[in-house]
Amino acid sequence: MPDLYQELSKLADSDYYPFHMPGHKRNVESTPMKGAFRCDITEIDDFDNLHDASGIIQEAQNRAGKLYGCKETFFLVNGSTCGILTALSAAFKEGDTILAARGCHKAFYHGAYLRHINIEYLPYKLNERYGIPESYTGEDIEKALSDGIKGVFITSPTYEGRCSDIGKIAQICHRRNIPLIVDAAHGAHFGFGNNVDGSGSDCEYEKLPENAIKLGADVVIHSVHKTLPSMTQTALLHCQGNTVDVDRIRRYLRIYQSSSPSYVLMASIDLCIKEMEQEGTEFVRTLLEYRNHIQNAVRNCKNLEVLGKNVVDDAAKVCIYVKNGTMTGQKLYDILREEYHLQLEMAGDRHVLAIISGWDTLEGIDRLINAIIDIDSKIGIEGDASECISDNTKDGVIEYQLPKRVIGLNEAWDSDREVISFDEALGHVSGEFVNLYPPGIPLVVPGEEINSDIVRSVAKYLDENMNVQGIVNGDRKGFICVKQK
Amino acid sequence: MPDLYQELSKLADSDYYPFHMPGHKRNVESTPMKGAFRCDITEIDDFDNLHDASGIIQEAQNRAGKLYGCKETFFLVNGSTCGILTALSAAFKEGDTILAARGCHKAFYHGAYLRHINIEYLPYKLNERYGIPESYTGEDIEKALSDGIKGVFITSPTYEGRCSDIGKIAQICHRRNIPLIVDAAHGAHFGFGNNVDGSGSDCEYEKLPENAIKLGADVVIHSVHKTLPSMTQTALLHCQGNTVDVDRIRRYLRIYQSSSPSYVLMASIDLCIKEMEQEGTEFVRTLLEYRNHIQNAVRNCKNLEVLGKNVVDDAAKVCIYVKNGTMTGQKLYDILREEYHLQLEMAGDRHVLAIISGWDTLEGIDRLINAIIDIDSKIGIEGDASECISDNTKDGVIEYQLPKRVIGLNEAWDSDREVISFDEALGHVSGEFVNLYPPGIPLVVPGEEINSDIVRSVAKYLDENMNVQGIVNGDRKGFICVKQK
Repeated sequence: MPDLYQELSKLADSDYYPFHMPGHKRNVESTPMKGAFRCDITEIDDFDNLHDASGIIQEAQNRAGKLYGCKETFFLVNGSTCGILTALSAAFKEGDTILAARGCHKAFYHGAYLRHINIEYLPYKLNERYGIPESYTGEDIEKALSDGIKGVFITSPTYEGRCSDIGKIAQICHRRNIPLIVDAAHGAHFGFGNNVDGSGSDCEYEKLPENAIKLGADVVIHSVHKTLPSMTQTALLHCQGNTVDVDRIRRYLRIYQSSSPSYVLMASIDLCIKEMEQEGTEFVRTLLEYRNHIQNAVRNCKNLEVLGKNVVDDAAKVCIYVKNGTMTGQKLYDILREEYHLQLEMAGDRHVLAIISGWDTLEGIDRLINAIIDIDSKIGIEGDASECISDNTKDGVIEYQLPKRVIGLNEAWDSDREVISFDEALGHVSGEFVNLYPPGIPLVVPGEEINSDIVRSVAKYLDENMNVQGIVNGDRKGFICVKQK
Repeated sequence: MPDLYQELSKLADSDYYPFHMPGHKRNVESTPMKGAFRCDITEIDDFDNLHDASGIIQEAQNRAGKLYGCKETFFLVNGSTCGILTALSAAFKEGDTILAARGCHKAFYHGAYLRHINIEYLPYKLNERYGIPESYTGEDIEKALSDGIKGVFITSPTYEGRCSDIGKIAQICHRRNIPLIVDAAHGAHFGFGNNVDGSGSDCEYEKLPENAIKLGADVVIHSVHKTLPSMTQTALLHCQGNTVDVDRIRRYLRIYQSSSPSYVLMASIDLCIKEMEQEGTEFVRTLLEYRNHIQNAVRNCKNLEVLGKNVVDDAAKVCIYVKNGTMTGQKLYDILREEYHLQLEMAGDRHVLAIISGWDTLEGIDRLINAIIDIDSKIGIEGDASECISDNTKDGVIEYQLPKRVIGLNEAWDSDREVISFDEALGHVSGEFVNLYPPGIPLVVPGEEINSDIVRSVAKYLDENMNVQGIVNGDRKGFICVKQK
């Protein structure tokens, strides 16, 4: 069956002349992007309509659904962002209360704001040693679910590649007849290649986790650009079961997505799905090989630790941790970029994160390995660092105390606001989200009280030149607070 | 100064290796789209962040702002859709009432719904002969503006290329200190080439209308893909004056746009801006030449009429009207497509619409002209059609009576709903938007009463195989109505 890209190419080669949008009339020769312009059309006959799909786009969506084992799958051209907004809007009514992890993407908070949804938070736990957010067990959810909660929203895998027990959590939700929505933006590659035989003593990562649809979640959002070969800003929304009305999903996708969706982005999703259909197993084999190659090659490093399967479930997330505080994450990130020309995904407090995929080259992977070994050997060792890597189980967890909620998100974010200096902010109610980016988990949400932990953390992050969003950081530093009456 | 595309190309040619998203690692050779994949990155160092722009993206936005004469211009990668949602959300508070034309894009209604904004409608007038929506004068607005109205939202140009008197309307709004938002999605090419000398007896179209920012609107949304050479789904939002807070614009752009915006789309906007900077005048000269060539070549047609400057202000909109009801718009559209391989933008009741731009080819324009002349000569003439084209002024207008509003949009759209057959729908309250697409102006909005006009029109459109959205059209035809208690 022809894919969207093949049909677009056929059109470009035909004598059909475009008296429609876009204005470039596919008549652009000046840049190497002309291949994309050639496929860039609007909703014309035979090319279906994303917002009311019944033809070639629907076929492509069905192909994607089949691949992930889902009956209703939608292409997203406004990223996982619009998928999260849609899932929340479709699944809940204004005024509903839901249970969610604090470490959700900002789109989650935006959706709650737009639709006046109240959030109850799961305990926010961090891995004690590495400082990265923990995932959730079924027990965590069971414990936190009180009467009147209308649904659960979980991010899994997290940005750092940790997976919650989606299968158990889905069962718990379904016993109460409430939906489980999973932001699996970083897990579009999960569930492929489960026939790969990766066993053996050298293979720390034997396979990838299962995908959240197969584990029973009701709505799952997958960014296909993050770990699969589709263009940035593309994603999928999957919907199954009967706790969320698929017509409401369609309504909100129409609201949150352009009425002129890009055929280039849609074709790129379809090409990606076809590639995963045909080469998915091979892709996983390559990814696992790369990952195990890294784990084996760097295991004797003294100062840098590439976190393994005991902490990071996803083979695609290479989290390089600096032991003993010999260097900040930002410093390691800068060295990798400036001295080795390796551009990583992000820098955390004490770690950096690299994303690998089946489309990496072995040459690229070896450059990363050599850089890690090289930097590790140059770090001045204080004491014997090897002591710290003795345990091989998941580490202890600490619970981060969330700030006290004083007023609701909507009331606070829509209120009159004023800037309050760092010295005076203590006890004021925040009128803005304050995030450390990436990944952008809020330190404080509008309506919450600014406490001493927050003031101290923000000051520290700013000193370390990290990217803190939502504060005033000019001549006069300050928090944006709800104006006191 | 290098543009975004040049910087992306430089990066692609460098030895910097990507350990970040997207998953394809710019390592895609298999399709002619590889030129686009090569430029497809995420927010890495030196490449700025659309949602917090201060580097290369901000420079590009400034370049676009300068071109249109606006201080604050934003790139949109989720189309004019997200620009309209943002403008409404930023300019108004929940519960505000605004004045708007009925013929607004569905995103306008979606924005009003999301933010609980009440709409008062301007009278909905249609050109009596051609059946296309009228534009608005300052007087229309003055008359309709009652106390308590917090702003005005106008679509200009309309889908069919009619322009309202934005200059006057802006003055009226500013005397009351309320914002004017203009959905100029179809007018991104306006204001260019005003130095083109198009005068002469053969030149019906001498220049393009002025752009809405220069005319004083507070927020203007431009689709750069519709009439300029940028990729589909790209647009600009311009903001000036002090009636709308630009920080609120930024907030809602973050909400309604992907947090992983496509660099390919952004580069395409920047390339388009650079092209218009350098070739804008030449583009307009070509567009006007094409248009006047069409007007001159088809002026002796008896059955088809290409509407001229007396009806259609925008030279880019070629509206071909079928006189005397000898053929439906849909039939003409089908003939042009099937027999001449000319793909038009849309079919209306009695007309079709072609969009032309400076990127058309003379060969394409001549194919359209020859097709019009050919079809015109083949139509069986009933009576002497030439009688009907004697007047050369704007035609008379008829006012379309809007359905009665029974309950609010939000209450109706969020209510329990049921399907009511065509025979029984009269007097029920609609629970859904019913649109004829394109361009999608609602026949009825949720909360309005279904009257006999609506039932009759929808039945007729369905008979003519036109694209009516928002009704149930399977075994059992029906309207989606608010469930009666």
